[in-house]
Amino acid sequence: MDYETPLFFRVMQYASRAEGDVIDMVSGNPDWEPPAALREGLHEYADADPDRFQYPPSDGLLELREEIAARRNVDVSQVVVTNGAGEANYLAMARALERDSGSEVVLTDPVYPYYPGKTTMLGGTQTYVETDETGQLDPDDVRTAASADTAAIVVNSPNNPTGAVYPEETVRELVSIAESNDAILVSDEVYDHYDLSGTFASALSVDSEHRIVTNAFSKSMAITGFRVGYSIFPEELVESARSRHMLVNVAGSRPAQHAVLHALRETGPEYYRANRDRLRDRVDTFTDALERAGAEYTRPDGSFYVMVRFDGFPGTLENVERLIDEAGVAGMPGTAFGSSREEWLRFALVTPRVEESAERLIEYFE
Amino acid sequence: MDYETPLFFRVMQYASRAEGDVIDMVSGNPDWEPPAALREGLHEYADADPDRFQYPPSDGLLELREEIAARRNVDVSQVVVTNGAGEANYLAMARALERDSGSEVVLTDPVYPYYPGKTTMLGGTQTYVETDETGQLDPDDVRTAASADTAAIVVNSPNNPTGAVYPEETVRELVSIAESNDAILVSDEVYDHYDLSGTFASALSVDSEHRIVTNAFSKSMAITGFRVGYSIFPEELVESARSRHMLVNVAGSRPAQHAVLHALRETGPEYYRANRDRLRDRVDTFTDALERAGAEYTRPDGSFYVMVRFDGFPGTLENVERLIDEAGVAGMPGTAFGSSREEWLRFALVTPRVEESAERLIEYFE
Repeated sequence: MDYETPLFFRVMQYASRAEGDVIDMVSGNPDWEPPAALREGLHEYADADPDRFQYPPSDGLLELREEIAARRNVDVSQVVVTNGAGEANYLAMARALERDSGSEVVLTDPVYPYYPGKTTMLGGTQTYVETDETGQLDPDDVRTAASADTAAIVVNSPNNPTGAVYPEETVRELVSIAESNDAILVSDEVYDHYDLSGTFASALSVDSEHRIVTNAFSKSMAITGFRVGYSIFPEELVESARSRHMLVNVAGSRPAQHAVLHALRETGPEYYRANRDRLRDRVDTFTDALERAGAEYTRPDGSFYVMVRFDGFPGTLENVERLIDEAGVAGMPGTAFGSSREEWLRFALVTPRVEESAERLIEYFE
Repeated sequence: MDYETPLFFRVMQYASRAEGDVIDMVSGNPDWEPPAALREGLHEYADADPDRFQYPPSDGLLELREEIAARRNVDVSQVVVTNGAGEANYLAMARALERDSGSEVVLTDPVYPYYPGKTTMLGGTQTYVETDETGQLDPDDVRTAASADTAAIVVNSPNNPTGAVYPEETVRELVSIAESNDAILVSDEVYDHYDLSGTFASALSVDSEHRIVTNAFSKSMAITGFRVGYSIFPEELVESARSRHMLVNVAGSRPAQHAVLHALRETGPEYYRANRDRLRDRVDTFTDALERAGAEYTRPDGSFYVMVRFDGFPGTLENVERLIDEAGVAGMPGTAFGSSREEWLRFALVTPRVEESAERLIEYFE
């Protein structure tokens, strides 16, 4: 069996081997500081008794699950702490596909490329629904695409790569479509702390046995390498997801869970606000420059990404490599995200050099 | 789909809720110190630049893979760093089952209960081969049990729960049986640092495209909660295992990988020897006491476990709970490990109180 390896790694490798100075706008790795309490939590853990170095509970440190449950207003029994959002989505999609309620997974186009990869690995098939130009999803299109064979509808808001944030009405409709097809809405909300629009709605706001919400601290705490995420399951779906988690990973990594717990407790809203404000400034800087250059682009309502279209320069891997070599800017090819953004490139605003990168792009395309 | 949740967790929960003082001999969590350099590595990491908090390479920090490759005398491209031995075994078994070369997994009885659980989750079926009383596996029995439908043969040496260490001849035969059935030998060697017999042979000593070796630092560094393990694949099997790892977990946890790397580099053989000597002393203490009491037991050649049979007291969950409540000693029921040890109980020697626990058991059964 072969699964498509996400293009991210190929592009990052190419960029790291390039000769000149390259501004990295490929990956979604925050370039800012984690919460100070996260570092404190790691130091504290490093001096702990040896028994704290042994297996945490399989579904995560209880205090961490309690903090998550309290913040998300769910019962602690619904929370499974995972190895990042990656495993959270894997568990959620596996759970949806093993219910004997269909083998089709409805995805958006553009799509975050791990979702179709996971679908194939889990034995499902993909059906795509195109978003509009701004990345918004029309629930009627999803309703038309869904069928009795639909096992899951997987969405991501704030969205990677479009920057769209789905309004509550869309989320409500998506849950209802899942319900009427005996399917599961998997709502990946890993960018929830980077909603620049104020309109973000979690799928948790809709009570249902047909939705699973996934999230992680990777982006909100700037720790993509720690691998601490979670899934929130309806009561009747949690037990076998917990078993799968145990059989695949036994448990998540305890130093990381301990540090996240400490940071969750000790970090105030100003930390998250400052990161959001920084991101907003970068969006302004980058899109203002693109605007002056007359380029076509999307202005994100959330997440880290700006999509850009340059005339006669489609979003292929070859063109991305040309930009790395000739302009010194590394982005992601639109082709990585499905067929609807083949003309586009995606740039991640996780570098302080967004102004410089915009200037390089403008100069290159002048 | 339902997978059996390992009994470990039920027993540990029961023991933790018991009223009196209970000596915990349930889990395989070392009770000794990790290497000093492991703690140093965590402190060092806690102060690292924020970019070190972002995704490590999916297959693990390169320096860590290089250290492992050098120690195991394999090419670095064959090494995938995993979320503990749990994920390493999952990837190995998944790789064996997706080769379209059968759906049967040959396991031993007694068996480490995660293996049959993973088999079911991955859509395979189990065939069991009984070991002899000492836990040794007769390769002829495996040859008889294996067939064209065999995808994998999964073994564990030094063995949990029997304490058996397979001689090189057995390992060589197992590889040959895998080869002649176009199957994969999965050799879980997580207790390799606790070979008390000096006869341990890694499956890596037999060159073949038909064996995958799994391991972890969980036991050797007394850090079961860190979740750093690895699989060593033949070149032709590694690529899709790497993809599955990426699609399930994205990557392992970086603070833990960093600390393990530092500890690997800075820890001399005296650390491992001291742990092995401590274990050997405990084996002597525990089995001497059992001997004096006339109980039937196995003397482990490796790993952490002693199996004990008390007359008229089969190894059921009920009896384990009685021992917790009435003798103050928590072990594992033999029924957790298949059908061949139903009369037995397993005790893990990862407590300084082995003498006291033996005395409690003797007094209880007098």
